[in-house]
Amino acid sequence: MRPHDIQVKIIACGICGSDMHCAKGDWGRAYTPLAVGHEIIGHVTHIGTEVDKSKFKIGDRVGIGPECECCGKCYRCKHELESNCVSQALTYAYVYPDGTKTQGGYADNIRVNDKFVFQIPDGLETIHAAPLLCGGITGLRPLLDYGVKKGTKVGVSGIGGIGHMTILFAKALGAEVTAISRGEKKREISKKLGADHYIAASDESQLKEGKDSLDLIVNTASSFSQTHLESVMPLLKPNGRMTFITAPELKEKVEITPFFFLFNNYSIGGSAAGSVKQIEYMLKLAAEKHIKPWVETIDISEKNVKEAWRRMEEGDVKFRFVLTGYDKYFGEKN
Amino acid sequence: MRPHDIQVKIIACGICGSDMHCAKGDWGRAYTPLAVGHEIIGHVTHIGTEVDKSKFKIGDRVGIGPECECCGKCYRCKHELESNCVSQALTYAYVYPDGTKTQGGYADNIRVNDKFVFQIPDGLETIHAAPLLCGGITGLRPLLDYGVKKGTKVGVSGIGGIGHMTILFAKALGAEVTAISRGEKKREISKKLGADHYIAASDESQLKEGKDSLDLIVNTASSFSQTHLESVMPLLKPNGRMTFITAPELKEKVEITPFFFLFNNYSIGGSAAGSVKQIEYMLKLAAEKHIKPWVETIDISEKNVKEAWRRMEEGDVKFRFVLTGYDKYFGEKN
Repeated sequence: MRPHDIQVKIIACGICGSDMHCAKGDWGRAYTPLAVGHEIIGHVTHIGTEVDKSKFKIGDRVGIGPECECCGKCYRCKHELESNCVSQALTYAYVYPDGTKTQGGYADNIRVNDKFVFQIPDGLETIHAAPLLCGGITGLRPLLDYGVKKGTKVGVSGIGGIGHMTILFAKALGAEVTAISRGEKKREISKKLGADHYIAASDESQLKEGKDSLDLIVNTASSFSQTHLESVMPLLKPNGRMTFITAPELKEKVEITPFFFLFNNYSIGGSAAGSVKQIEYMLKLAAEKHIKPWVETIDISEKNVKEAWRRMEEGDVKFRFVLTGYDKYFGEKN
Repeated sequence: MRPHDIQVKIIACGICGSDMHCAKGDWGRAYTPLAVGHEIIGHVTHIGTEVDKSKFKIGDRVGIGPECECCGKCYRCKHELESNCVSQALTYAYVYPDGTKTQGGYADNIRVNDKFVFQIPDGLETIHAAPLLCGGITGLRPLLDYGVKKGTKVGVSGIGGIGHMTILFAKALGAEVTAISRGEKKREISKKLGADHYIAASDESQLKEGKDSLDLIVNTASSFSQTHLESVMPLLKPNGRMTFITAPELKEKVEITPFFFLFNNYSIGGSAAGSVKQIEYMLKLAAEKHIKPWVETIDISEKNVKEAWRRMEEGDVKFRFVLTGYDKYFGEKN
């Protein structure tokens, strides 16, 4: 226990695409044994000597996302941009300078800096809060950074784990939302999620009809090819922006044609998970607006994780797995 | 003469990099004979029957930029985004559906739709107004679209024809300006232009010191390579944006690394010349703030144009050539 650490007994953890990318070595090969998982909910069991006792007490229900430490000294840390800190520590697959390896939420307990421990509001259920901590904030940040408000026309491309939460948040901020997917398969479910419009990107006539209609497209697809970009981007008005939020394999590059961007005044950019302040805002917003990610719970076990990952790879989940049943697997006393 | 046409006797024309790109076939091969030139100043000699007579009269000093017609019906035209209209006509190297070819300002006269004819304010000299009509507005638009105001930290990369006007406008809008060039050669002249800071991109230590310092970089270089982007972009704060404004050869692509953009919340985009409203605003601003592009005048002639183009290719102009002496070459009565 360092002075600012908090220890948490884990009760739930969302399964994020990153967990699979990391395990498969898409971003480089991590150490083993490694517990992945960074959408963690649990109860506080130990509090470091310098933790603010008015903020945390034993038993509090708290959450931990993909970041568990930052340098606190750089421009980014001093300007509420902790998730862009070059020296940040990741909740799993990170090695501190002293050799300590971080371990994530597919485990019984976790101990992290209190700066990255978030109180979960009473109105928010554990299973709904978990996937917000990475997937939710990753989808919400581009909306906040853009300044989405009532009437902003937002496209959400890719209707999966992160995409469905992005729709929920965009609606909560008052946006007019267009869900975008390759075919027709996601049309009905997008409407159920609250999307006002739907465009199947494989249908030229729908793309044509939607031209010049959006201010912002949040691209949540986990991989993207040139074809996809250049077919979907014309849905943007001039001065429109596409923000991509998921990290594809390291080897994947995006090639842009300068003339296409020039002529249409388009821009494209990336966005990492959100700041501490944005995560706090998100949890408050989710509680107030009754935002409930669509989740499927599954008891934690080697067999079940394997099965869940298999189904995620096939897109067979609506829309996010959350691991529960920690006491059954690890025992109550752990 | 169509009902909305205005005919102008040309007295000056800026030499834009586009003129050379077009003549060299970098954007495809145009018809010949072709007069290039789209930074045109002249006097009104004929006015179409439906031109608003309270706006234009014979003898008025007016300007014409790179666009001379738009459809007027599309979303873009209806929302003051004429320079993004898919059906716009270019001042030169454009063929109308009826086969009429447009000819630019290296010529004695021009006839265009009054929508794209701009009154030049009295306070603005002809030779200073000319280069604003393409180069000036192209550099100013990214500043306006970004919302640059007092204190915005703007980088201008590439200190040439457009770049030097971008510095002048950014200062006029109240920005704190950093000029960025490869080596040290442009340091002194950038200060004379009003830049507050200077960074030589070939010097690692200057790049390191400037890290996380800019809100917006306007990249005015006429060609850009991956190396250049990824060395200069870290000067941006997270959520910073790079806008490129010049059109490289068609075959040139830009490859972006998703992780680099994601991790830093960077975006990159293109920007075409400005709208009618933005050009009007620019001319007013330039007159009020006494903005004077640095120009070298040269009498129009085949020999002189050839020499000017040769010198531009070598970067040997500070910072823009303006063709004058039209009466000497074409005769006063043309």
